Amino acid sequence: MSAGRFIEQEHIGALIADYSGMTRDHIPATRVEAAGASGGLALRQGYMAVASGLHDIVVVGGAEKMTDVADAMSVDIQSSAADQQWECSFGATFASLHAMIARRHMHDYGTTREQIAQVAVKNHKHGSLNPKAQFQKEINLETVLRSSPVAEPLGMFDCAPTSDGAAAVVLCAMEKARKYTDTPVKILASAQASDSLALHHRSDICSFEATAVAGASAFKQAKIKAKAVDVAEVHDNYTISEILAIEDLGFFKKGEGGKAGQDGQTAIGGKIPVNTSGGLKARGDPIGATGVAQIVEIVTQLRGAAGKRQVKGAEIGLAQNVGGTGATSVVHILGVA
Amino acid sequence: MSAGRFIEQEHIGALIADYSGMTRDHIPATRVEAAGASGGLALRQGYMAVASGLHDIVVVGGAEKMTDVADAMSVDIQSSAADQQWECSFGATFASLHAMIARRHMHDYGTTREQIAQVAVKNHKHGSLNPKAQFQKEINLETVLRSSPVAEPLGMFDCAPTSDGAAAVVLCAMEKARKYTDTPVKILASAQASDSLALHHRSDICSFEATAVAGASAFKQAKIKAKAVDVAEVHDNYTISEILAIEDLGFFKKGEGGKAGQDGQTAIGGKIPVNTSGGLKARGDPIGATGVAQIVEIVTQLRGAAGKRQVKGAEIGLAQNVGGTGATSVVHILGVA
Repeated sequence: MSAGRFIEQEHIGALIADYSGMTRDHIPATRVEAAGASGGLALRQGYMAVASGLHDIVVVGGAEKMTDVADAMSVDIQSSAADQQWECSFGATFASLHAMIARRHMHDYGTTREQIAQVAVKNHKHGSLNPKAQFQKEINLETVLRSSPVAEPLGMFDCAPTSDGAAAVVLCAMEKARKYTDTPVKILASAQASDSLALHHRSDICSFEATAVAGASAFKQAKIKAKAVDVAEVHDNYTISEILAIEDLGFFKKGEGGKAGQDGQTAIGGKIPVNTSGGLKARGDPIGATGVAQIVEIVTQLRGAAGKRQVKGAEIGLAQNVGGTGATSVVHILGVA
Repeated sequence: MSAGRFIEQEHIGALIADYSGMTRDHIPATRVEAAGASGGLALRQGYMAVASGLHDIVVVGGAEKMTDVADAMSVDIQSSAADQQWECSFGATFASLHAMIARRHMHDYGTTREQIAQVAVKNHKHGSLNPKAQFQKEINLETVLRSSPVAEPLGMFDCAPTSDGAAAVVLCAMEKARKYTDTPVKILASAQASDSLALHHRSDICSFEATAVAGASAFKQAKIKAKAVDVAEVHDNYTISEILAIEDLGFFKKGEGGKAGQDGQTAIGGKIPVNTSGGLKARGDPIGATGVAQIVEIVTQLRGAAGKRQVKGAEIGLAQNVGGTGATSVVHILGVA
């Protein structure tokens, strides 16, 4: 994400093909970009490349080495995912926009600060079970509530970290996949939706309509209802984002997401385990890689290979990846083949 | 292209959907990026979106307003399309890399400075026939040869200008297209290839192998040979680039592109009219829009609607769009439906 500003290299698709040896055969490489949703969007483009019949095998990947870049988390770069001209140039930051969403959710639905904080506690618990998570330490509610304020009510432990990371998946038609693996996973649905870039153009900031629309479209494609999903990875770049996501996707009614988390319904063993990888909060948020890493986690769960964090009998998984403050949302549903 | 650095906005797909009113229906919008090949790549993604069955109607567009951006043509931004780390940080510029290619082509094949300059003369002549061209004035050989040196042997008139511009096309399945227009145009082939980002990793800099590979693949898909093409738009960001392109695509033998142009074979009325729009040189090079503008010209020609610059009886057209110094090449072949 933002390779132009991070490493002054806009032609990153060709660069990755080059460095991975694929230019020997002149394999085409395409960069797609939608801020935090870049990875999910890449999967969707790869899916279309195979489904269109133009390509047999497609590798979809994302990578970010944010600790190499001095200003990776600067207000400046983060702002380029929101409305730079009409939000950020007037002082809004990515964190403060999410803080407004949190405040409004608390006001409209009685969501408590503790319920919001519980998202981080749960995701760190899940991260402690994931040997590939950036943070594998459990934290308690106190730690989140007492962490340094970033944009109130959100504190440091409500925000996904600066991360290095990469993820990739290989796509091909199912009949071909069976030649290479005994445990192929099928893409049951691929959906995407847009919304206004700025929050102030929306009638309701307690919901990301792009997620609701992409989710509904994905469920229709997969011919299932939300309750059929066994495990989900959602875009918890801030704790409040997870609450919005599980409501917008229909796992819980609007306004009940905070309480559902507090009651343990989104933890492993609960009604719908969410972010078993640890999520953006604990697995990490290497921005361009995040959407692909979500898919890797769902595939791992559907293969029954998630070890201590395995959701028993998981057959259908969902991944939701967000760009900006909900201006792009991508939802994929995967199933055991 | 490079929206993050040009306008500090990375989430440009959502922004365009937003500003064009498409977010009312939450229509998905995807940004693709491959430096100068961004437009061609966008067409290819849109083509796959329709061919995959995921979308009925797709709008593919590109836009650039370079005169709004103080450093649009700075070495810095241009360099982000080449190998920033191993070429440009040591002093190479986009123009100087193309100058090296020109020198080598002159050395290996006896291509003359006049033959290279003739590309600009011919494209300005074509531009004079295009009411939408940025430059509609003819120039003569003298003007090109005497223009201020940029990177010798290339002078100012060997380089595509800084441009403002936008272009868009609407894609859908042919049966649907006939409901909206009496003159639909069919995409016969869509091909793309990569090469090393840096020139120094290539065995031969007188050829863009990515163009040769994408071209061969496109001809195979369309089940035609190069000589079947009636009109072509190629990526003449520098005059030498057009010579490489018409050789790599097989319109002329390697080393004979300069002479072919000098003999008038690439002018309207010649064997294969190239850049009837005026090309990047005279129509203009609004980077992200360029690849789409090429398609608009080919469609206009195939519809017989190109006015004074019409290639008589044109039934098959080709567009070649390059990113960087040939690290990405995209070739589309269109035909009268």
